[in-house]
Amino acid sequence: MTLPVIGLPEIRAAATQQLIIDSVRGALIAHAEGRTSVPSPLHLAFPDAGGDCHVKAGHVTGSPHFTVKVASGFYRNPQLGLPTNSGVMLVMDAKTGQPVAVLADGGWLTAWRTAAAGALITHALTAADVQDVAVLGAGLQARLQIEWLHFLRPLAVVKVWGRNAEAAERLSAQLRDSGINAHPASLEEATRSACVITATAATAPLAPAEDFDAANHVTAIGADMPGKKELPPALFRRAATIATDDHIQCLEHGDFGNAVRAGYSAPDADMAVGTILRDGTSTQTAFSIADLTGIGAADATVAVAILKAVGVPRTG
Amino acid sequence: MTLPVIGLPEIRAAATQQLIIDSVRGALIAHAEGRTSVPSPLHLAFPDAGGDCHVKAGHVTGSPHFTVKVASGFYRNPQLGLPTNSGVMLVMDAKTGQPVAVLADGGWLTAWRTAAAGALITHALTAADVQDVAVLGAGLQARLQIEWLHFLRPLAVVKVWGRNAEAAERLSAQLRDSGINAHPASLEEATRSACVITATAATAPLAPAEDFDAANHVTAIGADMPGKKELPPALFRRAATIATDDHIQCLEHGDFGNAVRAGYSAPDADMAVGTILRDGTSTQTAFSIADLTGIGAADATVAVAILKAVGVPRTG
Repeated sequence: MTLPVIGLPEIRAAATQQLIIDSVRGALIAHAEGRTSVPSPLHLAFPDAGGDCHVKAGHVTGSPHFTVKVASGFYRNPQLGLPTNSGVMLVMDAKTGQPVAVLADGGWLTAWRTAAAGALITHALTAADVQDVAVLGAGLQARLQIEWLHFLRPLAVVKVWGRNAEAAERLSAQLRDSGINAHPASLEEATRSACVITATAATAPLAPAEDFDAANHVTAIGADMPGKKELPPALFRRAATIATDDHIQCLEHGDFGNAVRAGYSAPDADMAVGTILRDGTSTQTAFSIADLTGIGAADATVAVAILKAVGVPRTG
Repeated sequence: MTLPVIGLPEIRAAATQQLIIDSVRGALIAHAEGRTSVPSPLHLAFPDAGGDCHVKAGHVTGSPHFTVKVASGFYRNPQLGLPTNSGVMLVMDAKTGQPVAVLADGGWLTAWRTAAAGALITHALTAADVQDVAVLGAGLQARLQIEWLHFLRPLAVVKVWGRNAEAAERLSAQLRDSGINAHPASLEEATRSACVITATAATAPLAPAEDFDAANHVTAIGADMPGKKELPPALFRRAATIATDDHIQCLEHGDFGNAVRAGYSAPDADMAVGTILRDGTSTQTAFSIADLTGIGAADATVAVAILKAVGVPRTG
């Protein structure tokens, strides 16, 4: 058996923002319509090395391929000159179970599909006249959330807050290099924006609910596993729309679940991100929260689109 | 990133029976001693294609690598000229989370480590003077169970029963080619043997408990996911020793769990296969049952041993 390995340069060349956004949009809508198979992720912890590893599988009904994705985060890697996040995506034939290809993407496809999902729902739930966007977090995903939102709509000004002031400064400079008018802000300034995106590894709410009183929309990206939380649970009380990418995952380990457990939201108060992307929303001017935990179906649609673009032949 | 793919010919050359048996033995003992990290497997079903896919991860504490294994079974593949089972094993660095290599083993490593685990515990729990061995099932795993047991001890005569008589005839001939005195038998003849190994995809007990009255030991391999069962639950009532490779998995979807739910065994009546392999047993002459569901830690030790034999350099 020869198993083609597609490396990052080839993947980068194929993975245009439009391709990723279209693929992720398709996955979120399919997921909302029950046309996906997304088993509970598998987790491995490496406490001695300060690392963890998630495995997610996904299939969109009728698609010729399914994917199994291994994504790791080892937080001492930078000291070794290695990236924190890494990963591999295995593409399998959904008719025969044979392996088709390995996408050795180093975790980038996860970063991009997360950015695409966030940008899509932030764009859908943020009124067109909102100019005032903030990102909490100064890492890669914070940068991508803004860059991919900028791909979907013009951004007049972006405030960047990070626990690490230097990192916020650096991210602001990077965003300005991408043509986005970004500058560092205090936590209070950032949370008082009309549109707030959180992309941190926080394990406690970043600010009290009243600090977000000026917000029209909040997208929370960071809480992707048990123990993580970014938003104050009370913030969900005034949300006219709560959008979740996966109802169960968000209940189990998203900020939505934290709010439900704290009594600030009913467990059925959410609606699917994919439904909003498909149908639009009539409540764009009311306050909304989007809680994203990442769905395996998005890995699958992105991988299938990239394989198609790269031109890997089907096995079997 | 270059990710080495190790193909089946290279894997076959490295994977001696002794290497696999030593690796699996180490994994089972480590697992019994709590020195492994083996998250719940992830399952995907493909009802339209008649297939399923399991993902298992495993790590032995202190080992430089961990593995994520994708194993599929697509039961119409033979009609397409493809093997039913397929798979890929991904080896990751346990200190950095970076992918190290892909073992494109086509599912063979799973078959071999399953054979090794079965042979090890059948050998340990079957008195040395037992000559009378039967296998229920006529597929690949039935063949391997006998061949690998034969590697550990001489086998005077082996009875082969299969639902498909032709397959049982064919397997008997294959075993004779391997130097084992095997011949097809009726279900009644086979179950009346002193040592019975079941390796079928049965979803109902293969025979009533009283049919196994002559048995000194039974090893059950087939029940590896919910809905599968091979042994009559009442058979567990007279077992002096019940050996499980993983307590929780066997409770959840092994024949042991079926017996517990039917009231024929206490949920804590089992002991770890690895403990028996490490310490031996003083009850070899009393009736025993081994229930194996497959542990991710065995994939990990086998993969690490093969990588070492093949000589793939560590990344990171």
